[in-house]
Amino acid sequence: MGFLRNSCQLPLFFLIVFLLSSSATGFKRFRRSRFNHEPEITTSAPSNDTQTPYFYNQTLDHFSYKPESYITFRQRYVIDYKYWNGANAPIFVDFGGEWNIGNAPSNGFLTAIGPRFKALIVFLEHRFYGQSIPLGSMEKAMKNTSVQGCFTTAQALADYAAIILHLKETIPAAESSPVIVFGCSYAGMLAAWFRLKYPHIAYGALASSAPVLYFDGFAQQVGYYTIVSKDFNATSRSCHETIRKSWEEIDLIASRPDGLSILGQKFRTCSELKKSFDLKDYLDSIYAEAAQYNEPPRYPLTTLCRAIDGAAEGTDVLGRILAGVVAFVGNQSCYDMDEYNEQTDTSLAWGWQTCMEIVMPVGHEVNDTMFQFAPFDLSSYVNDCEKLYGVQPQPHWISTYFGTHDFKFTLHRFASNIIFSNGLSDPYSSGGVLENISDSVVAINTVNGSHCLDLRPAEESDDPEWLRIQRENEVDTIQGWISQYYSDLKFRG
Amino acid sequence: MGFLRNSCQLPLFFLIVFLLSSSATGFKRFRRSRFNHEPEITTSAPSNDTQTPYFYNQTLDHFSYKPESYITFRQRYVIDYKYWNGANAPIFVDFGGEWNIGNAPSNGFLTAIGPRFKALIVFLEHRFYGQSIPLGSMEKAMKNTSVQGCFTTAQALADYAAIILHLKETIPAAESSPVIVFGCSYAGMLAAWFRLKYPHIAYGALASSAPVLYFDGFAQQVGYYTIVSKDFNATSRSCHETIRKSWEEIDLIASRPDGLSILGQKFRTCSELKKSFDLKDYLDSIYAEAAQYNEPPRYPLTTLCRAIDGAAEGTDVLGRILAGVVAFVGNQSCYDMDEYNEQTDTSLAWGWQTCMEIVMPVGHEVNDTMFQFAPFDLSSYVNDCEKLYGVQPQPHWISTYFGTHDFKFTLHRFASNIIFSNGLSDPYSSGGVLENISDSVVAINTVNGSHCLDLRPAEESDDPEWLRIQRENEVDTIQGWISQYYSDLKFRG
Repeated sequence: MGFLRNSCQLPLFFLIVFLLSSSATGFKRFRRSRFNHEPEITTSAPSNDTQTPYFYNQTLDHFSYKPESYITFRQRYVIDYKYWNGANAPIFVDFGGEWNIGNAPSNGFLTAIGPRFKALIVFLEHRFYGQSIPLGSMEKAMKNTSVQGCFTTAQALADYAAIILHLKETIPAAESSPVIVFGCSYAGMLAAWFRLKYPHIAYGALASSAPVLYFDGFAQQVGYYTIVSKDFNATSRSCHETIRKSWEEIDLIASRPDGLSILGQKFRTCSELKKSFDLKDYLDSIYAEAAQYNEPPRYPLTTLCRAIDGAAEGTDVLGRILAGVVAFVGNQSCYDMDEYNEQTDTSLAWGWQTCMEIVMPVGHEVNDTMFQFAPFDLSSYVNDCEKLYGVQPQPHWISTYFGTHDFKFTLHRFASNIIFSNGLSDPYSSGGVLENISDSVVAINTVNGSHCLDLRPAEESDDPEWLRIQRENEVDTIQGWISQYYSDLKFRG
Repeated sequence: MGFLRNSCQLPLFFLIVFLLSSSATGFKRFRRSRFNHEPEITTSAPSNDTQTPYFYNQTLDHFSYKPESYITFRQRYVIDYKYWNGANAPIFVDFGGEWNIGNAPSNGFLTAIGPRFKALIVFLEHRFYGQSIPLGSMEKAMKNTSVQGCFTTAQALADYAAIILHLKETIPAAESSPVIVFGCSYAGMLAAWFRLKYPHIAYGALASSAPVLYFDGFAQQVGYYTIVSKDFNATSRSCHETIRKSWEEIDLIASRPDGLSILGQKFRTCSELKKSFDLKDYLDSIYAEAAQYNEPPRYPLTTLCRAIDGAAEGTDVLGRILAGVVAFVGNQSCYDMDEYNEQTDTSLAWGWQTCMEIVMPVGHEVNDTMFQFAPFDLSSYVNDCEKLYGVQPQPHWISTYFGTHDFKFTLHRFASNIIFSNGLSDPYSSGGVLENISDSVVAINTVNGSHCLDLRPAEESDDPEWLRIQRENEVDTIQGWISQYYSDLKFRG
């Protein structure tokens, strides 16, 4: 799934794109986003002297009592004391997702609202990412089936519960502080799920761009690629049409004896093009990324379409596509078709998660988009995953444990204090909760917002009015929860 | 902890009693209750031809993906179709606790209300009990650390989730049926916790005599033995005083060179009395059982006290105690001091659970009860358990996963559709939720009720008015939830 660009400080951001090919349908990949500054990860002292990194001695397996369950690993978290007032002021906890949080993480929204709430800000790193990898390295962790097997969302939520309880017990004047959890994308789902599973620990959750409905049994009429296509169409009808026509053009050329060589030269591939799928998949990833992160002030989708539409008169379809690539990626001597398949610790980790549990049926389901028809095929997906890891994926588990079929119904009758924020231009909003469910389970949407935009650092002068309003609504809602919390404290004990 | 006598059909019922001795403080034991008919467990066809036993192929470890997580075991459940109307009528699920459900289980309350709701009634057997033991036997299961380690409440709840979802998918016209879960004592806690953890599966819960607050950090001013003592005092001040004096009498005689032999003869112990503790612990268990199950029409506590008070004039303190034992247990040629320590598959299983997770600090904390002072000592308890099993108990896990410190606060702000029913004469009511928390999280108490009395079969003519009123209140509350459910169905999807 896609991911997180919620801060300039966050070093890695990923976008999943599902393959087009029916032979490998649904297999997902990762990419660095090219829009953010990606600082070197430092293991030295944090740059911000109000932030301190700590390591919690975390239990590997919270849900069984086998001898090997008691293996522990060092889980990193960072505390920012800068705004903290003590005296039961709130604790804002930023949930890590599938990334390295670094030693000086940032969540622009929390930094912006910290002073108003006099809040303690805590950043948690997810197990198996960054410096929170059991056995010290992904290679060792993923070779040990006992350790690898404990890499699940339920375990990750229990980690967060344990750390938060530890902080409330050890930080002076924090015992009665309300805890509000925040997360973006996958971590946004974690935040919402945490509020459902650990309501005694988190008093509220802001789940930004969290496609909590995009699981098992999700209706496919409007899915990820439908929104990508809609975004392109809204930006430029002709750009959308050029892309829509381009796939057949590629297929046509590729069907010639020297077709792959021609395509490789045309798109300046860094290495010989071995199959047309690689090019199509690369382009697919670029379009998805452009739509997912089409944000102010640069609006990469607009840049891409402007190049496609603005190519010299007489430029053919593939020439226009190339102009779009050049505008989007930058003018390079060659383009790496494998860019989105780079193997890193993080991609290894997320590869496991998306195979085993976080199975979102993102495919090209509908025939009226600008993409070729290539639906998600769960059984081939699961088979490929099982071959890869040697254990059987559990694509229905998220639905069993958290609910998805009746999720809105459940939220209505059961949940409280959750904000689901979405930008409707974000393709992942197709799996988000987009309507108010009750007085305290609310949707705060923007028509033009992109993935996790509300949690990104405020740009002050540059931020559009609609984004400022979204953030203010979020702050007001959280303020309301916290006021309620203090007046409800009488029910404690 | 104590348990369950919610039906004549249930073959085994247990009562934990914590040892008095400071050398073994807090270690728990089990007993058969002598008040219920205990049918032979049958593995043949059920006696009631509307009930059918099934076996679900259950996953051993829901929370990790190790090769051994995929071991499965046959988990028994029984369906009673007698009242089922189909057409989205409700499904009432009776959660098994620490007992063998048999092939023809019964929950008197469900049988009584089934026709009114046209409900499907389902009985689930808990993992590691009855015929739902992995590897086919407790001996094998508890020798295999990978299997034994998965014997946890979180896994048990996930089992129930999996079976209920399976039923909703496979039983015609059940897909949109509201599920209400029921449980008594430990299973009552499971029912309440299930509503909290799986609100998308259970729409409501009736937790009868569930001491959900009796964990980690539980305030000890009024605990289990305070209520036992209060019950005796309310029945007969002189009976209470006789018992209060008896402990020192026993100690005094035991301190003589031939004291144990004298005590053994006096109390007709079946084998030589090796230490006075064994006698005191046996008596302690009898008093606890009498208080926990002091129910109509026989009122065993009244019987016991009547015998103590009514002994011939001039009978000494221990003579009166013996008269109480004879009245309570029956006139036997000898009394087995080990009766409450019998080793069975069930006691083995519950021993593990109460060591590892279900650690309730039941002790003799307060000096003004009829018992000798002997507080619960967590650290010696945990040490004894760790020696026994070789893995470290997690006495704080229940609190981490379900919440206990702020449980009422959490229920108030978060939960809905839970009935906590208690009889205030039940010693376990000391750890129960005894007040209404919100409009839909309610306490339905009776002053005179005993452990799980509301779920026992209605005795028609014999049941007192207050018990009939309690059950009617429960039915009305559940009816209200179900009406709300149908009107809320529009939020589905």
